[in-house]
Amino acid sequence: MAIIECIPNISEGRRAEIIADVADAVRAVTGVRLLDLQSDPSHNRSVLTFAGEAGPLRQAVLELFDHALPSIDLRSHKGEHPRLGAIDVVPFVPIEGVTMAECVALAKEVAAAVAERFEVPVFLYEEASSHPSRRNLEDIRRGEFEGLPAKLADPAWRPDYGPARPHPTAGATVIGARMPLIAYNINLATNRVDVAKKIAAGIRMSSGGFRFVKAMGLTLDERDIVQVSMNLTNYEKTPIFRVFETVKREAARYGVQVLESEIVGLIPANALLEAAAYYLQLEGFSGEQVLENKLRAL
Amino acid sequence: MAIIECIPNISEGRRAEIIADVADAVRAVTGVRLLDLQSDPSHNRSVLTFAGEAGPLRQAVLELFDHALPSIDLRSHKGEHPRLGAIDVVPFVPIEGVTMAECVALAKEVAAAVAERFEVPVFLYEEASSHPSRRNLEDIRRGEFEGLPAKLADPAWRPDYGPARPHPTAGATVIGARMPLIAYNINLATNRVDVAKKIAAGIRMSSGGFRFVKAMGLTLDERDIVQVSMNLTNYEKTPIFRVFETVKREAARYGVQVLESEIVGLIPANALLEAAAYYLQLEGFSGEQVLENKLRAL
Repeated sequence: MAIIECIPNISEGRRAEIIADVADAVRAVTGVRLLDLQSDPSHNRSVLTFAGEAGPLRQAVLELFDHALPSIDLRSHKGEHPRLGAIDVVPFVPIEGVTMAECVALAKEVAAAVAERFEVPVFLYEEASSHPSRRNLEDIRRGEFEGLPAKLADPAWRPDYGPARPHPTAGATVIGARMPLIAYNINLATNRVDVAKKIAAGIRMSSGGFRFVKAMGLTLDERDIVQVSMNLTNYEKTPIFRVFETVKREAARYGVQVLESEIVGLIPANALLEAAAYYLQLEGFSGEQVLENKLRAL
Repeated sequence: MAIIECIPNISEGRRAEIIADVADAVRAVTGVRLLDLQSDPSHNRSVLTFAGEAGPLRQAVLELFDHALPSIDLRSHKGEHPRLGAIDVVPFVPIEGVTMAECVALAKEVAAAVAERFEVPVFLYEEASSHPSRRNLEDIRRGEFEGLPAKLADPAWRPDYGPARPHPTAGATVIGARMPLIAYNINLATNRVDVAKKIAAGIRMSSGGFRFVKAMGLTLDERDIVQVSMNLTNYEKTPIFRVFETVKREAARYGVQVLESEIVGLIPANALLEAAAYYLQLEGFSGEQVLENKLRAL
């Protein structure tokens, strides 16, 4: 069975009845499992995580639009988090028995259906993007809802699907496919935040580090230690063990030891199996040797 | 869904039609998946590996007796491998969503049914054993089929189920529950077999090493290197990473490096997840953080 994850971000994090209605609409779709729902009132934004096969997911996203779109008006929406639309961003993530190409195809199919049914302009992003300039969510979202009329009037920002004008209340939506994201922190046995910041700068892509690492250094006041806080955006190409070993080595440069690391939320099994294979120097190891995988494959 | 593995060893490794008939009988049970079948003509023995929930497994083992017992006569059986019975040993192994206690209960239930239906004396072993002296298969099997009349006449070797006399053609059967076994080898960058043998002696229980390690040192002639070849009989209590790190450290004592390690056959995912957690110094990690587990639990 193929498992794809879908993690829509909607621009409503305060009105509980609307959030519950949207979650119920997703939950009601046969073949879809709602895994998580997190609402942030100061961001005025909610993140739904659900999973299933392509068909049910497509239906769930359309149900989500059907319920969220009439209730959210971006003309009066305020929140700390940047946003372009009422349904702001909809990523599809391959988890098991499914390729990235299939998730890209699903993203395009859903984008076309959303544009047609709701007259919302849609930009494709990440692996589904139509051009490198549209790959990063931050670039697409720059200018936010308020800047959409001008942005869509620019031929360079013609949407991938739907009209070249914002939906009056729902703006635009960004839909795409990406690898699972791992939220990963490494705690250092020191209270020197400069060390955490220097290490973060060294490993993140934006300042010359690994291609698929976002990182910052911060203080954990209550414990009097510091943390390198990271998002690993493609664990296949920038694996967790390489990041961990690099942080450890860089910390040693300042006479600092790694205290511990932590996974925040969920992690794909393969990210950890690859780490085990690396450290145990496993030769010729394949996922087919994992007993549970073998059982499920039959 | 609970997954239990069952790995019966039968005393027939030469007559293909009998082996095929037994495998077909197991395969025909709804809810049972035959994962593997290996026959060794010189041992004159076959090993079936199948999995499922308790009910279907119970039925599959009874079918296996039904088909194997009339076809195998230990009075004329010859082979290199020690054996006590036509159906020699039947271990149940907890894989997922099931406790060892449940596998012990299943072993006892199957043992009682086998004894009653086929009049075969049954010894319980490993986690299901009724006494420490019956824990190890080797102790129960000592004397083999030929020594059974004398053994069963000894009050200390009264069977756990069934008559205190051998089945005329099928001898006795050993049934029990145990942890999954990991076949694990570490190759060393040297051709000095004395180094592999010394390390093996240092890590195996029988000569003072880890409780759940069996190990020997041998030469891989074709590659001009040596290997520490191991069975890890309880990866929860003697984890793979501790064995690997100990071998590495012991090898360094002789100026020898670890070339690589290898898993032979299948390994439970948790054995590798624990290794990843160890090396990455993961704090507060639990299997519930593995995305695939979370999806399946819902």
